[in-house]
Amino acid sequence: MPVLVPLLALAQAAAPAAAKPPRTPTEIVAAAPASAWRAIPAEDLLVIDYEGGGRTIVQLAPAFAPVHVANIRLLANGGYWQGSAIYRVQDNYVAQWGTNDAKRTLPAGIVARPPAEYVRNARGLAIRPLGFPDPYAARVGYSGGWPVAQYRDGSVSLTHCYGAVGVGRDLDPDTGMGGELYAVIGHATRQLDRNIAVVGRVIEGIELMSALPRGTEALGFYKEGSVAKKIAQVRLASALGPAERPAFQYLAETSPTFTAYLDRRANRDDDFYRVKAGGVDLCNAPVPVRRTPAR
Amino acid sequence: MPVLVPLLALAQAAAPAAAKPPRTPTEIVAAAPASAWRAIPAEDLLVIDYEGGGRTIVQLAPAFAPVHVANIRLLANGGYWQGSAIYRVQDNYVAQWGTNDAKRTLPAGIVARPPAEYVRNARGLAIRPLGFPDPYAARVGYSGGWPVAQYRDGSVSLTHCYGAVGVGRDLDPDTGMGGELYAVIGHATRQLDRNIAVVGRVIEGIELMSALPRGTEALGFYKEGSVAKKIAQVRLASALGPAERPAFQYLAETSPTFTAYLDRRANRDDDFYRVKAGGVDLCNAPVPVRRTPAR
Repeated sequence: MPVLVPLLALAQAAAPAAAKPPRTPTEIVAAAPASAWRAIPAEDLLVIDYEGGGRTIVQLAPAFAPVHVANIRLLANGGYWQGSAIYRVQDNYVAQWGTNDAKRTLPAGIVARPPAEYVRNARGLAIRPLGFPDPYAARVGYSGGWPVAQYRDGSVSLTHCYGAVGVGRDLDPDTGMGGELYAVIGHATRQLDRNIAVVGRVIEGIELMSALPRGTEALGFYKEGSVAKKIAQVRLASALGPAERPAFQYLAETSPTFTAYLDRRANRDDDFYRVKAGGVDLCNAPVPVRRTPAR
Repeated sequence: MPVLVPLLALAQAAAPAAAKPPRTPTEIVAAAPASAWRAIPAEDLLVIDYEGGGRTIVQLAPAFAPVHVANIRLLANGGYWQGSAIYRVQDNYVAQWGTNDAKRTLPAGIVARPPAEYVRNARGLAIRPLGFPDPYAARVGYSGGWPVAQYRDGSVSLTHCYGAVGVGRDLDPDTGMGGELYAVIGHATRQLDRNIAVVGRVIEGIELMSALPRGTEALGFYKEGSVAKKIAQVRLASALGPAERPAFQYLAETSPTFTAYLDRRANRDDDFYRVKAGGVDLCNAPVPVRRTPAR
């Protein structure tokens, strides 16, 4: 009987033999030159610290939802989310957190009813096409480090891939000022594209949300008086001291490394694979992100 | 400030007003006539009971991986998995369980090296097309209650959608007799299609796998001597007494209800939605499954 220990594990193993050129997506990305990486501004990083430890970091997308992101920065800087919680976890859908407690003081400058920043025009956006068909949009690809979809009317939206962060709202559009956010923790919920403001994505610590027990009430809500996880504080990385400030980079979609990465995602041919897929869907080829390496 | 309590919740709310026709996918399925449902045979249901309680049920796919499924039935009936465990949980990828402990007795009749049942020919398969493009295959759709992909060479595979169950194997194809299985717990890992034997899908209790803490070692393995969850026993539903035997049905893809369901998945227009997607991907329109209702 064969020794099966690593099994499927091998499908993602990233241990290059000394002399071999990089073959897996992970190996390709690890070999990227410094010039392929772009710094993420500290004011675009939302740092969520949980009670009892643990941290989730969200990259914000001001180019796509500027009013919502401005609100979120004000809320973070105003300490609005201290003592809030993750209060909804629905399997294969979303984890949702924050608060809309009317007793909390809203920081000055909050736009209570932001515009419906669900799509934006394509002006100024260079989109690197994915190169494979998409069931939801006329074309999909990457722009400024984000997975995007473009529609027949020319508008562009961020996409609800795994880890995408959006703004909870009521039935009316233009509701949802940013106090309650959700992250996708299952298969991409692309039906929400163009229907909610996507404001970012989780770039570290998604497992602290995705591995939470699912809420037992309808839609993954927790029973009254109970929550999935308590949030100690939420801050922008720019509000942290230089020594403790986390720093991240994303792989530029304009880099040759990104092209090679995308090709490997679409045509895995490392040892485990017998048949190349010959394609990949947008949400299965996420933009690589890394901690900024020490110099 | 608007009352935001249900928020995104409303995106999936399924509370039809008395006089309204069904509009959401859930409402459509709830209104299906009995004739739209097909019974799942009891010998196609793998019942996984955990130590300390909880149960996950997998529907097997003998039409796609007959030798592997025959092995799995023998292993279940032989008590092979008693005291095994979920030993690997990798975020946005898979939870893996079972054992390949050489000290365990293999039931008589096991095919130690099953053929690579990664695809099958299309003969005898009626495929109901999804009707939207797919980045991985020439066409995708449903057949006999399963999401399937058909390729340019005419071959057909099951697809690695959320909940899909496959057979762990070593680098060589034709390894992996079925003792170790995995379930997809994140975005569809379609790159594995045609590269591993898919033998079924989780139809109940996926959250007992997907909400487990992620393993801290490479690829989501747990530290030596530690596991995510212990498995008390695994049985076929057909081995359970009639009173305790679970029974399920799936919605036939040939039914008018399925067509209406698919249309609603692709064109959500219930109250929360502002813009219909106009399409849906295969893994975001799962085959509806339900407990067989009491007569």
